[in-house]
Amino acid sequence: MTDLALAVDLGGTKVEAALVDDAGAVVPGTRHRRPTGPDVTPDRLQAALIQVVRGAARNADGPVRGIGIGSAGPIDHAAGTIAPVNMTSLHGMPLRDVVADAAARAGLGDVPVCLGHDGGCLALAESWVGVTREARVSLAFVVSTGIGGGFLIDGRLFAGTTGNAGHLGQMHSDGGLSLEQVASGPASVAWARAQGWAGDTGEELAQAAASGHTIARAAVERSAGAIGRALADIAALVDVEVFAVGGGFSHVAEDYVELIGAALRDAASLAYARAARVVRSGLGGDGPLIGAAALVLRSGS
Amino acid sequence: MTDLALAVDLGGTKVEAALVDDAGAVVPGTRHRRPTGPDVTPDRLQAALIQVVRGAARNADGPVRGIGIGSAGPIDHAAGTIAPVNMTSLHGMPLRDVVADAAARAGLGDVPVCLGHDGGCLALAESWVGVTREARVSLAFVVSTGIGGGFLIDGRLFAGTTGNAGHLGQMHSDGGLSLEQVASGPASVAWARAQGWAGDTGEELAQAAASGHTIARAAVERSAGAIGRALADIAALVDVEVFAVGGGFSHVAEDYVELIGAALRDAASLAYARAARVVRSGLGGDGPLIGAAALVLRSGS
Repeated sequence: MTDLALAVDLGGTKVEAALVDDAGAVVPGTRHRRPTGPDVTPDRLQAALIQVVRGAARNADGPVRGIGIGSAGPIDHAAGTIAPVNMTSLHGMPLRDVVADAAARAGLGDVPVCLGHDGGCLALAESWVGVTREARVSLAFVVSTGIGGGFLIDGRLFAGTTGNAGHLGQMHSDGGLSLEQVASGPASVAWARAQGWAGDTGEELAQAAASGHTIARAAVERSAGAIGRALADIAALVDVEVFAVGGGFSHVAEDYVELIGAALRDAASLAYARAARVVRSGLGGDGPLIGAAALVLRSGS
Repeated sequence: MTDLALAVDLGGTKVEAALVDDAGAVVPGTRHRRPTGPDVTPDRLQAALIQVVRGAARNADGPVRGIGIGSAGPIDHAAGTIAPVNMTSLHGMPLRDVVADAAARAGLGDVPVCLGHDGGCLALAESWVGVTREARVSLAFVVSTGIGGGFLIDGRLFAGTTGNAGHLGQMHSDGGLSLEQVASGPASVAWARAQGWAGDTGEELAQAAASGHTIARAAVERSAGAIGRALADIAALVDVEVFAVGGGFSHVAEDYVELIGAALRDAASLAYARAARVVRSGLGGDGPLIGAAALVLRSGS
């Protein structure tokens, strides 16, 4: 019988829950999801949480040690509330208490409930079952509709003052825009369209770039370049050993991660910053849930 | 009888040594210095180190627990070597071993020798006897000929992978230049001169700004604005509670620190980043030596 955590992942399109075992694997058959979206209300989210938590808890065949929640950020770690950039109607929602209530309704009793932002959870997962296990200082992040991540320092999550360290997407990039506004999937698609490309999605952009479309390829390089320059600054400031790049848009080109690394080395002036490695994430689609569970099972927070 | 550390501070213009007690004060009469400069050779620096270490050690009236060295960065913490940006002739110098040898010659016996970069040492001093004592996450930095600092996390120095975390001066700023190239004292003087101001030094710039000279005041605001925008990025990324600003150029205007804070709040988009406080350093001229001693006496590294 293994220790289990109940993991909850709240994102801009869906909320999920599942059981995760102490080897860092989602227990088959325990994953449940409901849609969210930019207009989700606290009441509808609460109802969805009650459903997915109950669904996930139903098949526990061992003790559930606690509940880990990874939420779209920012969060307020001390208050247990959230203020996600892309779900403004949820600002101030006491997510930790709401999930604790849902867990009690599901018969989980009085177990600890830990809240982290999704980027930090992903970084925990990467250091548990991914590619940053050996790193002293790492930043794992996703490039998708947003850009965000988290730091691991000596095997522990570095959460920052309020639980929000790792929000690199809100750093400034070219032309006064944020990195997210320049280099995310939607931003890259919008830029390519403004240059005359006719597609609509990141998947189409990937196909066009792969088949040699000049604008599509330029959009890929523009995104990787902006991210690499940001990583050069982060490497100088935080003295990072490994950057792990994940998220849907990181698959827009086979060499996307290498392009980021090249841009980093081009922009970094100090030897230790140039030496920071940029690698592809070792996580699959279970990464966010595994990371949320790690808040409980790996005592990283 | 109090515990003592022998502190060594290596900078671009001088190398100093002194005894520091376990209350964080330089022992009167133990401070010795020799000039360095951009052309200093390893041999001349070694001779200077032997002199200042011997001078400082001479009057120890208690046990010297160890030797702390704060060096202009970057450093290589694992190798004990340095590669200071502004003293290229010293690149690769095994400073830790050279100081250990100087200490042995001065009769200090076999004590631990700790090497940190000067920004990290300053941050340790700020959290010991300065203004960041209560902060969970702080960045203390200087604005002078360069711009550099260090992070304290939960009372401990965060050194990074190679010992160099805190080099914010090498982050990118406006026009592809580094923050140091835009906002340091010499950069601000050069900018004002390029605009038609006729002075030569930071002190003259301070006087001109105070007496209402438009270009001089603009140079002050330009420096503070660039630094505040960089701090907004750092606050989003690292979730910092307090920034402590020191260094000679931080006295260029009475409201310099407030200008930095205003620029941070203007540039930061997330509430927790906007809430980061920017305060004036609580350290005097002994800060670098106190910080080097803290490497030994505060077990922060």
